[in-house]
Amino acid sequence: MAVYTDVSDAELSAFVARYDIGALLSAKGIAEGVENSNFLLQTESGFYILTLYEKRVNEADLPFFIGLMDHLAERGITCPRPVRDREGRALQRLAGRPAAMVTFLSGMSVNRPEAVHCAELGRTLARLHAAGADFSLRRANALSLAGWRPLCEQARDQADSVSPGLRARIADDLAALEAAWPRGLPEGVIHADLFPNNVFFLGERLSGLIDFYFACNDAFAYDLAICLNAWCFEPDGSFNITKGHAMTHAYEEVRPLTEAEVAALPVLARGAGLRFLLTRLVDWLNVPPGALVKPLDPLEYDRKLGFHRHATSAADYGLMR
Amino acid sequence: MAVYTDVSDAELSAFVARYDIGALLSAKGIAEGVENSNFLLQTESGFYILTLYEKRVNEADLPFFIGLMDHLAERGITCPRPVRDREGRALQRLAGRPAAMVTFLSGMSVNRPEAVHCAELGRTLARLHAAGADFSLRRANALSLAGWRPLCEQARDQADSVSPGLRARIADDLAALEAAWPRGLPEGVIHADLFPNNVFFLGERLSGLIDFYFACNDAFAYDLAICLNAWCFEPDGSFNITKGHAMTHAYEEVRPLTEAEVAALPVLARGAGLRFLLTRLVDWLNVPPGALVKPLDPLEYDRKLGFHRHATSAADYGLMR
Repeated sequence: MAVYTDVSDAELSAFVARYDIGALLSAKGIAEGVENSNFLLQTESGFYILTLYEKRVNEADLPFFIGLMDHLAERGITCPRPVRDREGRALQRLAGRPAAMVTFLSGMSVNRPEAVHCAELGRTLARLHAAGADFSLRRANALSLAGWRPLCEQARDQADSVSPGLRARIADDLAALEAAWPRGLPEGVIHADLFPNNVFFLGERLSGLIDFYFACNDAFAYDLAICLNAWCFEPDGSFNITKGHAMTHAYEEVRPLTEAEVAALPVLARGAGLRFLLTRLVDWLNVPPGALVKPLDPLEYDRKLGFHRHATSAADYGLMR
Repeated sequence: MAVYTDVSDAELSAFVARYDIGALLSAKGIAEGVENSNFLLQTESGFYILTLYEKRVNEADLPFFIGLMDHLAERGITCPRPVRDREGRALQRLAGRPAAMVTFLSGMSVNRPEAVHCAELGRTLARLHAAGADFSLRRANALSLAGWRPLCEQARDQADSVSPGLRARIADDLAALEAAWPRGLPEGVIHADLFPNNVFFLGERLSGLIDFYFACNDAFAYDLAICLNAWCFEPDGSFNITKGHAMTHAYEEVRPLTEAEVAALPVLARGAGLRFLLTRLVDWLNVPPGALVKPLDPLEYDRKLGFHRHATSAADYGLMR
């Protein structure tokens, strides 16, 4: 839930008047994303989402995110499409913050993905990777291997207060990943945060992707490893190999994985698990007292890492060869 | 801002399936009202607002609120219209809470009302009072004179910590109001909370009223007095008699006030001022540490009471005779 910045209806009306989308008819602050302030706007021409970028988004990255959505939409990936004002600008300022308006996408999040959803996701992820191939801007992944040690150091001293032995488990994970992290895998633009709440379905069909604010350049197979973490575990912490198979098989129908990617999958999955464990742990340890926003449970990823630590091959994830 | 209860998209889809409004296409938690959880739903037939009633709403009052919106809408007052499921029920349960779906209204709130908006509001308020005349349910006003002393006692001991002398000013107001509160004025259904954020405009035309969850039976002129407080003061605390005249004049074009109502206006306005001072003061003194929701400033009403305490006739409010 997130509306961090109050903007009056009068300010919003004046803002919308910069665009050729008709007058503003309605504006509602909406609870979407955890990083930014979002408003659902109704104008005479339809519905739009206005995002005000709060401090966790680096303003210098916005041209990458905005440009990427445009680039992907032009190549048939259904995602929010930046709207340009009469002077051709997509990136604006409002209430002292960077702001952008995008088209509204219908669709519902699936909170308990089934194998059919995992297959849809795998297929779309591969199409996303292909569509991003000729995108000209670059953005490094600040939350890959090199970013994990600083997060680890931030959380280390309090880790055992969250779960006994967590500090040692994280240290072991990090050491193993630093020793085994693959280099030279096929790379390009990845979404890097394609959790179920960022994927819309209408019925069993995937209808759109949102929230590109972690997108960056990194190994394609790492993006797949993030999705295996986010979509294919059951609430009890067990990995559902049927869902893993559905996702990886559908991915490979569009973009076959190289042998190096297949071999790297267990270490990539462990890395993705550690990445979300660490960021959630840091958030968990830094939640202000009395805050209304409940942080996500880091231990969900400690349990998932319990699986990754013992996985030996891509077959453990349902990827058949 | 308010989304207090999380409901998954799957639960919302199942809920919407009870209605004959098409499948759910999108659901967004929205920041509207401060008492309840609200979702903006898009279905195949259009947009709707789903409200989950949180603990500050008394469930026994819901048939009054739901019935009133239906009653008013049938009589041409533009307000959210309760949607009934296939079995004819408007009042439901969802996620353990009472819930109701209503139609979505376009429109924008005016944060700096001008005289033209005050006139529109006055006219619509009188039409609302006329439209409610034959509504069969009743609901007492828990926040009228008899409710103020308990609030006063709750806030008294800490009042001077908010503003020096506030305790004494409140005691004087309450004593004066208990001595002079009018009886026997024309009564009926009043909105009782018609602040600018509960009134929608499209351009300069009033397009709808929302949030009927303080509606009750009480003196019509008291509702007008609430609106004079909420709409006709300037940010510096001064009363704008031009706006007061516009509002009362437009009201009287639809429903002329009786001589008793005119005579009572200053005491009613002071009472309305005290009512919002007291509820805001109690909220202010009870805000949990670290809460994200900022309570409304009680002293805004202390300043408005500074005007009411010295008003001697309806003419001070712009009501000409």
